Amino acid sequence: MSAMQIFGDLGSGNCLKVKWTADALAIPYTWTDVDILKGESRTAAFLAMNPAGQVPTVVLTDGRALGESNAIMRYLARGSRLLPDDPFVQAQIDGWLFWEQNAHEPNVAGARFRMLYLMQPASAVPEAMRVRGDQALDRLETHLTAKDWLVGDAMTIADIALVAYTRVAHEGGFDLTARPAVRAWIARCEAELGLAS
Amino acid sequence: MSAMQIFGDLGSGNCLKVKWTADALAIPYTWTDVDILKGESRTAAFLAMNPAGQVPTVVLTDGRALGESNAIMRYLARGSRLLPDDPFVQAQIDGWLFWEQNAHEPNVAGARFRMLYLMQPASAVPEAMRVRGDQALDRLETHLTAKDWLVGDAMTIADIALVAYTRVAHEGGFDLTARPAVRAWIARCEAELGLAS
Repeated sequence: MSAMQIFGDLGSGNCLKVKWTADALAIPYTWTDVDILKGESRTAAFLAMNPAGQVPTVVLTDGRALGESNAIMRYLARGSRLLPDDPFVQAQIDGWLFWEQNAHEPNVAGARFRMLYLMQPASAVPEAMRVRGDQALDRLETHLTAKDWLVGDAMTIADIALVAYTRVAHEGGFDLTARPAVRAWIARCEAELGLAS
Repeated sequence: MSAMQIFGDLGSGNCLKVKWTADALAIPYTWTDVDILKGESRTAAFLAMNPAGQVPTVVLTDGRALGESNAIMRYLARGSRLLPDDPFVQAQIDGWLFWEQNAHEPNVAGARFRMLYLMQPASAVPEAMRVRGDQALDRLETHLTAKDWLVGDAMTIADIALVAYTRVAHEGGFDLTARPAVRAWIARCEAELGLAS
């Protein structure tokens, strides 16, 4: 049986979420780089695998494909310490995962994409994106002032999902200086995931 | 033991998702209207229940609160026909749920919020919101041309999540005339959920 395949971009937080989850759980995989700016996620071969034309996409050991970073993380982490079995705890984790895709990623990663990938100046980031990104980071700061991890007393996929773009928020022009609880949590996640800070 | 409480807005697709899921599964609840335009989701009492200040929010029979429409749906539907137990099927459903919050709702519901709640003209909807909303509706049309339901052979919470705002997409200035597969699927969902079309 061949290993799971991950198709992704190592500069993309959404792709790193899946990589870090597999690494943390020692799930074997092969990694294939996909350059979305060159259209490599919109080829006929790629679309046959994932009609949404997005990275990350994984091909499981049985050949079936899955898209959507948080859905993949949830699938890989089922039954593990990163997604405890208790239904209410899972619902709290899910709440952070959906909020990440709706309130955090479109703004924090959206600003970064414009500045880092499209090489636009910070001034080109729409005001609404800047305001909402700051609001999302403020919500994390408030929550993490009272707690070490987003849900419960240990790292879960909620932390992995949120830290991926929060950790590089400065690349989108966001300032974490006045958010010490977020910075301490990033360091905890980096230590837990074995990442260089 | 008191019934579950749902705090929501009957004009909000995110709130209706939770209502329809509870109705479909015959889960008892009381409904409390919350007027977000009057700031009722940002009062101290509401924020104590849900620090994100968002509807829907549910308070379970044991007094614990949950936010995020798709996380609530997933919690209520666990173990039911609306969320089959197979992990791969669940991952496909999750994929649609996360895509809904990232690619569909911000645009399709975002345009509707401006036109219906803020009473702005269609011309005030940003071009990027219009384009991305149309792309999301096109993806649904392509998928539903080949299938009756988003995942598997029956309605799941993926359909409930996506139909909530697709069904009222015209209120945001989107046109479903040239999307017959989407219209037929909306009718199937409405029949299944017992809604007036």
